[in-house]
Amino acid sequence: MYTKKVMDHFTNPRNMGEIENPSAVGTVGNAKCGDIMRMYMDIDDNGVIRDVKFKTFGCGAAVATSSIATELVKGKTIEEALKVTNKAVVDALDGLPPVKVHCSLLAEEAIHAALWDYAEKN
Amino acid sequence: MYTKKVMDHFTNPRNMGEIENPSAVGTVGNAKCGDIMRMYMDIDDNGVIRDVKFKTFGCGAAVATSSIATELVKGKTIEEALKVTNKAVVDALDGLPPVKVHCSLLAEEAIHAALWDYAEKN
Ligand code: FES
Repeated sequence: MYTKKVMDHFTNPRNMGEIENPSAVGTVGNAKCGDIMRMYMDIDDNGVIRDVKFKTFGCGAAVATSSIATELVKGKTIEEALKVTNKAVVDALDGLPPVKVHCSLLAEEAIHAALWDYAEKN
Repeated sequence: MYTKKVMDHFTNPRNMGEIENPSAVGTVGNAKCGDIMRMYMDIDDNGVIRDVKFKTFGCGAAVATSSIATELVKGKTIEEALKVTNKAVVDALDGLPPVKVHCSLLAEEAIHAALWDYAEKN
């Protein structure tokens, strides 16, 4: 049911946790399942995402997509990060079962919410 | 949204993992969200559940209910464990949001599946 990459990022998630005094925080919820996702970012003066961490109450698919999404945006500029689509994230995991695609949207939405938070603060 | 006990068992789950050479294994899936739960049990000759561990691809509610459910059945006899209802598990967590009750059922079903597996083998 789940690809090797999904199981890898689920059992060994990258960048899970919090950032103290982050430049930006984005929190989003999934009405379908009631789950929550939060992204923390450290963004430098050149608009480069130096660090990113996530926390979620969501399922394994939410953990795996967030884990790989943080890898895809880390070191990128805000402009580049905004172009990381949900499709790119799911492709990077070699796919997800259709019933789990709504979980994967949490990661993209949380990244956008964090970048929006940053834009508002700066 | 979530009680202190839910957050405690989610962030610090008890009895998460696998048992090598278990007496019984129960695996169940949730068609609604595509999640999976697996319970491993070590049951002695007197029918006492000496050890129980779980693994899940489910969300925080599934993790928290499984964690507390393993505490409720550990050290119990098979007969006693069969009487641990989902309601007892949710009550022990001081409640769950309604949208998450279906997640909590995974733990009860996995315990029953493991005990069924044990009955078939013995
Ligand atoms: S079921 Fe809620 S994030 Fe997957």
